[in-house]
Amino acid sequence: MTQTVISSASRSVVIGDDRPFVIIGERINPTGRKLLAAEMRAGDFSRVERDTIAQVEAGAHLLDVNAGIPLADEPAILARTIELVQSLTDVPLSIDSSIVEALAAGLAVYRGKALVNSVTGEEERLEQVLPLVKKYGAAVVAISNDETGISEDPDVRFAVAKRIVERASDHGIPREDIIVDPLLMPIGALPTAGRQVFRILGRLRDELKVNSTCGASNVSFGLPNREGINGTYLAMAMASGLTSAITNPLAEGVRQAVMAGDVLMGNDRDAARWIRTFRVAPAEGEQGRRINRRRALPPGPDGVGSHR
Amino acid sequence: MTQTVISSASRSVVIGDDRPFVIIGERINPTGRKLLAAEMRAGDFSRVERDTIAQVEAGAHLLDVNAGIPLADEPAILARTIELVQSLTDVPLSIDSSIVEALAAGLAVYRGKALVNSVTGEEERLEQVLPLVKKYGAAVVAISNDETGISEDPDVRFAVAKRIVERASDHGIPREDIIVDPLLMPIGALPTAGRQVFRILGRLRDELKVNSTCGASNVSFGLPNREGINGTYLAMAMASGLTSAITNPLAEGVRQAVMAGDVLMGNDRDAARWIRTFRVAPAEGEQGRRINRRRALPPGPDGVGSHR
Repeated sequence: MTQTVISSASRSVVIGDDRPFVIIGERINPTGRKLLAAEMRAGDFSRVERDTIAQVEAGAHLLDVNAGIPLADEPAILARTIELVQSLTDVPLSIDSSIVEALAAGLAVYRGKALVNSVTGEEERLEQVLPLVKKYGAAVVAISNDETGISEDPDVRFAVAKRIVERASDHGIPREDIIVDPLLMPIGALPTAGRQVFRILGRLRDELKVNSTCGASNVSFGLPNREGINGTYLAMAMASGLTSAITNPLAEGVRQAVMAGDVLMGNDRDAARWIRTFRVAPAEGEQGRRINRRRALPPGPDGVGSHR
Repeated sequence: MTQTVISSASRSVVIGDDRPFVIIGERINPTGRKLLAAEMRAGDFSRVERDTIAQVEAGAHLLDVNAGIPLADEPAILARTIELVQSLTDVPLSIDSSIVEALAAGLAVYRGKALVNSVTGEEERLEQVLPLVKKYGAAVVAISNDETGISEDPDVRFAVAKRIVERASDHGIPREDIIVDPLLMPIGALPTAGRQVFRILGRLRDELKVNSTCGASNVSFGLPNREGINGTYLAMAMASGLTSAITNPLAEGVRQAVMAGDVLMGNDRDAARWIRTFRVAPAEGEQGRRINRRRALPPGPDGVGSHR
């Protein structure tokens, strides 16, 4: 089993097919959040602080940190945000930017082994990002598109992922430090999007033997009850081989689907976490009442803890 | 794509990988339902009538009918139950018994092309049940165990399924009329039960090219929030290749997971059913309120209709 280790100064999280699924909290990201973008540009990080605490309490295993604010000094803001978040939690971070200088600034201040989000199969990106990943001993998200765009053919996307893994190896980055994102399209726009990704995920696990991740909120774009689609998608992707996702840990439907997915993949030992969360709580004067739709409890210490 | 057709006198349901997932309602079954068993033995079928209507209204595509009552005349009761259910609905039926004479009695009165539930890989069962299936032109559920029991090795269970398909062919029963049940164990007792079944399901679809079914309520035996496990299991199994399940269509968590699974497999065209069920209902004085946890609506006519 391929195991990817991401760490802060004092905590490590292991991503792998025989481990509980890893949720990478997506909230610290000003893209599409005008208020957060304005606040961060003005030096007000109070919302970042709240998003950090809330996601950690909801059981996020890693936090993605993005500071993509138009016309702002993204490297400086990203570095400052990372330092702030690391002062609040020891949950390890994913450093997220499309600007190489911002990734470099983030890596320079990060304490631990970060996840760099991301590199693509584009030649220029590969030769800019991979040396940074190697320099800091980080892991990296590899997105399976290249100069020709995103192929609708799952075998082409698999081939792009394979090429990134090979190129990373040329830079001295081992296979276990590459986490492939097979790129999930909105299912409302492309009805084959789900099947494509399930197929790629199986090949990533069985043939390329790498871990995988996915932005799991995009799939439901344009549809009602997005949480219902997102949670079900994650469970289906877990069965196909997905080992982590960048998503919203506060969405109850997503959390429950991932918890059930861990049970069904045999990665919630003795179903202990599931039972702890959903077991019958005897009410006053009433023994053994069935509680099927109980609100999920705040996770126990292992939800934000050593993750086995 | 392998397509299995099951029909009543006036309606056909098609099971296949490119079709909406088929839910076989499990409720008409006195096993573990003492009251229903006592009523059926005494000739009171009012609960069977209610279970029929409720499951059809909840969107069941087929109904399983079982009359397994200890020390009763099961062939006569099964035949009577089938005639009753067919007088109430044109949803096609699965005739469910472990007694060959009961299957024969049920088939003798059934109008349409029934699903026979079930045959195993045991020599004696094969030679008793397959001639009946051939005689009535029915389809059959093939359970992947044999004289040696249920193997924990998915490859052994696949081999048993393959042998049943071959034997059926010897009897003149085509591959598309065999629906394999890979046998799902409770996940609480066997943590590898999910992975085993996901693996077999992929081989059934890709190698043996048959449809599949599963009793999908057993997996959560002994756990709290069973509906949460059952629904997530079904979605994961759909991604792996499962095309039908014997389960409770009245369980909301199961219905929602199957509906989302159909969207994500590209089998809910334009996500039309999902959108119809969950779209925003503008409340009084309030435009566009998000309704994420709305109770599922009664299905539209196609829920119990021609099923494409």
